[in-house]
Amino acid sequence: MLSLQLAHQLSGRHILLVGAGEVAMTRIPKLLPTGCKLTVIAPEIHKDMWKHFDVPEDDDTVEYTDKHWSPEKNKVFQLFRREFRNTDIVLHGNGLADSADAQSFLNGELDPIESYDHSKASGWHMILTCIPDPVISERIYRGAKLVLGQHVLCNVADNPPLCDFYFGSNVTLGKGGKPIQIMLSSNGNSPRFTALLKNEIERQFGDLPIGESVAKLGQLRARVRKISEENCPATLSKPELIKYRMEWIRNCTDSFGVSHCHEMNVDKTVTLFEEMFADLSLEQPDNETYMREYLE
Amino acid sequence: MLSLQLAHQLSGRHILLVGAGEVAMTRIPKLLPTGCKLTVIAPEIHKDMWKHFDVPEDDDTVEYTDKHWSPEKNKVFQLFRREFRNTDIVLHGNGLADSADAQSFLNGELDPIESYDHSKASGWHMILTCIPDPVISERIYRGAKLVLGQHVLCNVADNPPLCDFYFGSNVTLGKGGKPIQIMLSSNGNSPRFTALLKNEIERQFGDLPIGESVAKLGQLRARVRKISEENCPATLSKPELIKYRMEWIRNCTDSFGVSHCHEMNVDKTVTLFEEMFADLSLEQPDNETYMREYLE
Repeated sequence: MLSLQLAHQLSGRHILLVGAGEVAMTRIPKLLPTGCKLTVIAPEIHKDMWKHFDVPEDDDTVEYTDKHWSPEKNKVFQLFRREFRNTDIVLHGNGLADSADAQSFLNGELDPIESYDHSKASGWHMILTCIPDPVISERIYRGAKLVLGQHVLCNVADNPPLCDFYFGSNVTLGKGGKPIQIMLSSNGNSPRFTALLKNEIERQFGDLPIGESVAKLGQLRARVRKISEENCPATLSKPELIKYRMEWIRNCTDSFGVSHCHEMNVDKTVTLFEEMFADLSLEQPDNETYMREYLE
Repeated sequence: MLSLQLAHQLSGRHILLVGAGEVAMTRIPKLLPTGCKLTVIAPEIHKDMWKHFDVPEDDDTVEYTDKHWSPEKNKVFQLFRREFRNTDIVLHGNGLADSADAQSFLNGELDPIESYDHSKASGWHMILTCIPDPVISERIYRGAKLVLGQHVLCNVADNPPLCDFYFGSNVTLGKGGKPIQIMLSSNGNSPRFTALLKNEIERQFGDLPIGESVAKLGQLRARVRKISEENCPATLSKPELIKYRMEWIRNCTDSFGVSHCHEMNVDKTVTLFEEMFADLSLEQPDNETYMREYLE
């Protein structure tokens, strides 16, 4: 059975991490750059974790909330230095509206676009446990499903049956600007081979000038779109126009390949498009011609 | 802001797909191999989608459920040939327990491991819409959050603010057996460059004998574990033993690299481990030696 790999947008979402030891440490660098509102609950804090809190290590506050938290800050939002309590499942609410409002929607009496303020609702978006006690872990998992619904996402470290998802192995290429994030997962079957493949991808593609490539592809796309729409023959429908344009760009960028997009001469390439669009041709130059004549 | 990439385990989970046109078609090959219990609701069905239903195309049943569905079958579980209705949000329940049970758990009176039958609870695990009507799409999104809680995962095609996650671009290497799944995402910034990179990864690594590599790495790991535990010196703690073993295997497999693990001579490599473990040495042979002496 395969997994469904998804890229979650978590800015401002509440996430609960129970535990603050070595395993929890591996979760934090994946979570904080998403801008999520992370709460950590644990009686003992790994010494290397303090850099992720905007509170000094020698501060002995038991319950700490970062009043100046923002998604860009890359810091933990809340720290509770104590054991987990059942009521932590609803620490920020249960994410549900009034059951009367829900019923009105189901009856067709309430339009949730117009007459319900979703910004009031909150609750955990995801719950992760990284503690060495399997019974407490399972209680958190089962309790969360009981109170928040079967669909709340949970991950109990080291207990695959209690993991709605796995983290996989990650590489980020083109750091800064507009990176490409890559996840590799063997669904637990071969973590070592997955790590080797991850290293190889990082080695081969880690130095690609992704920012420049993305910028050039963006320019090409915008100019090709403008030209094609301004000069669209009356015989061509809108879907046909879009189809032609997409196919042309795909053929062209496939020739430049992942290693040469950043060197593209956008002006010359746009001129080529103009000529070919006049005949609605898709007979592109071969790769060598692209490399010889359409790079800077 | 980065995304959190996760590999979801969906076997037997209810997933709702509203719409059955070209965009919906692109979702189905990602969903069915996970073994999820997929329900499709749409008045019109794309002609190429019929192969995913275990019902003949000329069947004019409005509501169809596959009585013989199983996760391995790779087919849609349910088809409703009609417009979406608000009550479809709770078609399989809301995933929640009795609110009295939930309250008892929060009070510490109910142990959800011992005294609550989670198998009774159901509901959508995820809701995807792929319909051209943005108002109905938003109503589904807002209604789902209202009734099922803010944490229910929704994706409204072509409407990024109403997407809790993106699908990204996927490659599966080593199909059959134990594959490695890869997702690439630029978080919407550069789909064309992401596609180029995906093609390049597929071109370069698509023919790797991953099954063989995984099998050999599995053998190596099992034998190294056995030898190290049977011959563990009294001075070495369990965590120290695990650390040594992991570091030794990492160094060794890094030398074989992604391209040569399948050719590893496991017997000779295990003998090397035995010799090095006697001295707790981590001074591994260099890559060339590994390539010359430890391949089959």
